[in-house]
Amino acid sequence: MNEDYVARSAQLAMLLEVSAYPKPGNVDRTHDYIDTRYEHFLASSVAVYPILREAAARGSRNERGVGELISRGVEESIAWQHGGNTHFGALLLLVPLAMAAGACERYDTKEIKRKATEIMQNTSMGDALEVYTVFPKAKVKVRRDVPELDVMDEASINEIREKKLSLYAILTISASYDMISQELVGGFEKTFEYAALINDFASEERININDAITHAYLRLLADEEDTFITMKFGPEKSKYVQQKAQWIVTRGYKRKEIEEFDEELIREGLNPGSTADIIAAALFISILSGLRV
Amino acid sequence: MNEDYVARSAQLAMLLEVSAYPKPGNVDRTHDYIDTRYEHFLASSVAVYPILREAAARGSRNERGVGELISRGVEESIAWQHGGNTHFGALLLLVPLAMAAGACERYDTKEIKRKATEIMQNTSMGDALEVYTVFPKAKVKVRRDVPELDVMDEASINEIREKKLSLYAILTISASYDMISQELVGGFEKTFEYAALINDFASEERININDAITHAYLRLLADEEDTFITMKFGPEKSKYVQQKAQWIVTRGYKRKEIEEFDEELIREGLNPGSTADIIAAALFISILSGLRV
Repeated sequence: MNEDYVARSAQLAMLLEVSAYPKPGNVDRTHDYIDTRYEHFLASSVAVYPILREAAARGSRNERGVGELISRGVEESIAWQHGGNTHFGALLLLVPLAMAAGACERYDTKEIKRKATEIMQNTSMGDALEVYTVFPKAKVKVRRDVPELDVMDEASINEIREKKLSLYAILTISASYDMISQELVGGFEKTFEYAALINDFASEERININDAITHAYLRLLADEEDTFITMKFGPEKSKYVQQKAQWIVTRGYKRKEIEEFDEELIREGLNPGSTADIIAAALFISILSGLRV
Repeated sequence: MNEDYVARSAQLAMLLEVSAYPKPGNVDRTHDYIDTRYEHFLASSVAVYPILREAAARGSRNERGVGELISRGVEESIAWQHGGNTHFGALLLLVPLAMAAGACERYDTKEIKRKATEIMQNTSMGDALEVYTVFPKAKVKVRRDVPELDVMDEASINEIREKKLSLYAILTISASYDMISQELVGGFEKTFEYAALINDFASEERININDAITHAYLRLLADEEDTFITMKFGPEKSKYVQQKAQWIVTRGYKRKEIEEFDEELIREGLNPGSTADIIAAALFISILSGLRV
C-alpha cells in the first residue's frame, strides 16, 4: 500500500484515539494530566509522520529496521513536544504494522497480520538494543521497584548483548506481564480483534466515531487487565479497573457512569496506557480497512 | 527548510487551531456543527500532509503550482472525511506559505514573508482556474445571492479565461470584501502580525498554548470584521460579532464571557471561518519560528 496512505492512516488513528472521550483514566480532548496534556499528543502524532511513512516504504522493499524506526519515532516525538511519554507503546505496535501494510499490495487483513507477525519474528539483537536504549528517553513512568522492569535498564542492555537476544526474544520474556509485548510476539491478536469491533460499533447507526472508540476502549479494559496499571500501581488496582469496566459494559455503556469512572481514575492518576495503545493500533487497522469519519 | 519539517509545522498549526477552545462560533474540541465535526478537521489535517510537503519541496526547487496544490489539497481533504469544507481557506494561505518556507534555507520572518508574497504575485491563469474549478467541491457554504460571489461560479471561470486573469489578479478583485484574498495579495500582513502576537501570548507564564490561540483569535475578531460572516450572513451580523469580541478583549478575555459568546454564535450558526483560517496560518509561522507545546 502507498506509503503516504499508510502513514496517514496510522497518524489519524493516533489522533482519533487520543481525542476520543470520555476515556476513563487517559488523556483525551477534555482531560489533561499535569505534565502531559492533550496538545502534547497532537504534536507527537504530527512528529512521527515521516517515521510512519518510512516504515511503510521499508516494508514495501522488504527491508528491516523495526528497532531503529521505533527509536527515531521516540526521538521525533520528544523533539516536538515537552510532555514526556505520549506514544512509546503505540509506536511499538504501529511501526511493525505500518511496515506490514507497506509490504502489501492492497488491504488484506490476514496478509497484514501474517506479515507483521513475521516482521517481529525476524527482528535482530540490533532492534532490541535500539528499543532498550531509547526507552529511558521516552520517559515512560513506571515504578522502579517492579523487578520485571529491570529488563528496561542498563543491565538488560548488557544481557541483550551477552545472550544475543533479538527484540522478539526479549519481548517474549516480557509478554507474560505486558500486553504490548504479548501483542508483538503473539501475532497482534487483540489489535485485529478490536479493529473488527470498532468497525462493528461504527457501522451502528446511532453510534458516532467517538463513541465507537470509547466503547471499544471500555470493552478492552473489561476483557484484559491493563498491564501498564499493574506495573505502575500493582495488580489490585488493575483488577479493580477491570471490574469497574466490566460493570459499565454490562450496564450498556451509560455516559454518566463512564464519566464518573473517568473522573475517579484521573483523580487517582490511574492511566490504562496499554489499553489506549492497543486501541490506537486497532484503529489503524480499521482505517486501513476503510473506516472514515 | 526541510520539507517534512515545514509540512509538520503546517499540520500542527491546523490541529492546534481547531483544537483551541472556546473559540466563539467555530468548531473546536468541544463544539461540533451538525454536518462538520471536530473529527472531520482532524482527518482533513491528516489528509493534506503530502500536499504540504510537496509545497515545501516545490518551493525549495523554485517551482510553481500554487493552484494545483490547493486543488489537490481540497481533493485529499474530501477523500478522507465527509464533513464538507474544513480547510479551504486555510489551504489558500498555507500552500504559498509552505512553498516560501521550503524556499528558505532557515527560518527568517522577513524572507518567508517576502517569498510568499512573490509566489502569489507570480501565479498564473492556470493557478486561478485550478482554484476556481475546485471551489464547488470544497462545499464552502456561502449565500448564493451575494453578487460578489459570482466570481466563484462558472461565469467567473469563463471570465478568467477571457481576460487571462492570474490567481493574483482575480484575488485582487475579491480582496475588497474577503480577508483571505486580502492576505494573499497584500503580503500576508495579518498572518505575520498575529504570529508575533501568538508568540507574545505564549511567552507569558500564566497562559497555556490553548489560551494563547483563543486570545489571538478573539483579538483578530475584534480588530477585523470576519468577511466569511459578512458574505454568509450580511454586514450587520459581522459588525455585531466584531463589537462583541471588542467588548470581551477590553474586559480582559474573561472565560465565562468567551463561553457565553461561543454558545451564542454556535446557536445562531455564525462561524467566523476567515478569522480561524488566518489564525491557522499565523500559528504555522509561530511554530516555524520555534513555538513548541
